Amino acid sequence: MSIQLGKGVASVAEVMTAATAEIDGVLQNLLPEPSGPERRLAEAMRYSVLAPGKRFRPILALATAELFNVPRRAALRVAVAVELAHTYSLVHDDLPCMDDDDMRRGQPSLHKKFDEATAVLAGDALLPLAFEIMAHVETHADAEVRVELVRALAEAAGPRGMVGGQMIDLTVEHKPADIGTITRMQQLKTGALIAFACEAGAVLGKAPTSARHALRAYARDLGLAFQIVDDLLDVEGSQEETGKRVGKDASLGKATFVALLGIDRARTQAAILADQAVAHLDVFGERAAFLKRLARFVVQRSH
Amino acid sequence: MSIQLGKGVASVAEVMTAATAEIDGVLQNLLPEPSGPERRLAEAMRYSVLAPGKRFRPILALATAELFNVPRRAALRVAVAVELAHTYSLVHDDLPCMDDDDMRRGQPSLHKKFDEATAVLAGDALLPLAFEIMAHVETHADAEVRVELVRALAEAAGPRGMVGGQMIDLTVEHKPADIGTITRMQQLKTGALIAFACEAGAVLGKAPTSARHALRAYARDLGLAFQIVDDLLDVEGSQEETGKRVGKDASLGKATFVALLGIDRARTQAAILADQAVAHLDVFGERAAFLKRLARFVVQRSH
Repeated sequence: MSIQLGKGVASVAEVMTAATAEIDGVLQNLLPEPSGPERRLAEAMRYSVLAPGKRFRPILALATAELFNVPRRAALRVAVAVELAHTYSLVHDDLPCMDDDDMRRGQPSLHKKFDEATAVLAGDALLPLAFEIMAHVETHADAEVRVELVRALAEAAGPRGMVGGQMIDLTVEHKPADIGTITRMQQLKTGALIAFACEAGAVLGKAPTSARHALRAYARDLGLAFQIVDDLLDVEGSQEETGKRVGKDASLGKATFVALLGIDRARTQAAILADQAVAHLDVFGERAAFLKRLARFVVQRSH
Repeated sequence: MSIQLGKGVASVAEVMTAATAEIDGVLQNLLPEPSGPERRLAEAMRYSVLAPGKRFRPILALATAELFNVPRRAALRVAVAVELAHTYSLVHDDLPCMDDDDMRRGQPSLHKKFDEATAVLAGDALLPLAFEIMAHVETHADAEVRVELVRALAEAAGPRGMVGGQMIDLTVEHKPADIGTITRMQQLKTGALIAFACEAGAVLGKAPTSARHALRAYARDLGLAFQIVDDLLDVEGSQEETGKRVGKDASLGKATFVALLGIDRARTQAAILADQAVAHLDVFGERAAFLKRLARFVVQRSH
């Protein structure tokens, strides 16, 4: 069943709830079932992935795929691959040797619930699964499309993407950083995967390069806005709302957008970025209505 | 320059040394250069990958690619991707929460030389780099070939491969295991990537399925033989020869082939497996001479 994202009178929250149910159904099917002596691995993968996440990145992939009339089934496979890659990064970032977070998505983080070794391995298993799903012929009949998805995710996940960003993040915990460094850190750490999620729909739809560029520009601004709101929620939110420990950036003396700009300027900056993100979508006209509403929603979110 | 593996009078060791130099040259070029605030990540990747490894898996990829006249440049890219995936697994397996190994390839393991967080991240960066290299058009003009390489590596690296095997390995540290469990553990933990290395040449050469099956059968037997010798070296070898801590399996009370079979039967079993491996290559005739010699070499190795 295809949910027409953003069509009709449903609120963004309602559309996201419906899409989340769809995404979670596919995740259920594509995650390995626990069996054999390695069953703990599959249990840990399911624990972390099927926890109640926002599914922000897979929803972006679904929404951009709709711009190009990509079959829902294909879009869902790529959406799910993005979520697996995202969850892997959360599991590893939460490790004691990294950000040492005990709570994630409203439940004990994976290494707290299981153990550190299982958390390392579950993360290590989620990323190849993402590549395997995208490389499978069911994702797209055209191998050029599948291999371009793989290439782009590999770039977003690797040293010039998520991992590079996390390395900068660990570095700036220990010394002061300027807004340029923080921006670059976030563009790699969270921006690269958000950009992949937005571009993936265009790749699946064999959209022209100009469309990919427009979606990448949207993703760049949206990703930074999303991150600034994350920083704000770390200062102003509660663990109940966010599902993770708050106040940790300040306690680590970490340079964040909020620490550098102050709360008011950070909030203004997020709103400006959302406006910019929306403007990049003008080329798509009314078809991009949901993506535009999503950008506004992101800067108003409370979790 | 193409080294004809196994042609002429060169010994297996000499051929391996020459191929290692070639492989290391490509690794040097394809690993990211340290730069920017994340430079520590690239330094750690280089430290672990460019350490003196045996390059057994990439040499298998080169040798099988030669069976099908694959251009050396393409074979080297895939060989290097295999080595990156292998090194990533070593780095994570050495972590304190896993096997807690201080020495690797004759030097301090990555988390000892750098720190745990950097070791997790360097591993996390090496695997996507392997996928990125294989997905790149320079690896093969045909996207079907590239995406099949990606799919097969993803399977070998994921829950039904390396990571699943490591999960079993952690489980059997704490309780007795039978030979069936140990065999399955090794087939996943080390066998899957060795099988990928052997199959990759056939994929690159668009070889018929029968050739892939023969190489997979060779890899299955060779991989187990290789592992039994690894277990023997853990009992009989020295840290100087192996470049890593020895005696650790026994100290952990770990069920290994040697613990279950005893030294003599284990050595006999390794030789039988090498014979079986060689027999699978008969379909390739003289072209497979080097792969056959390599199987004998593996069971006689001292490091």
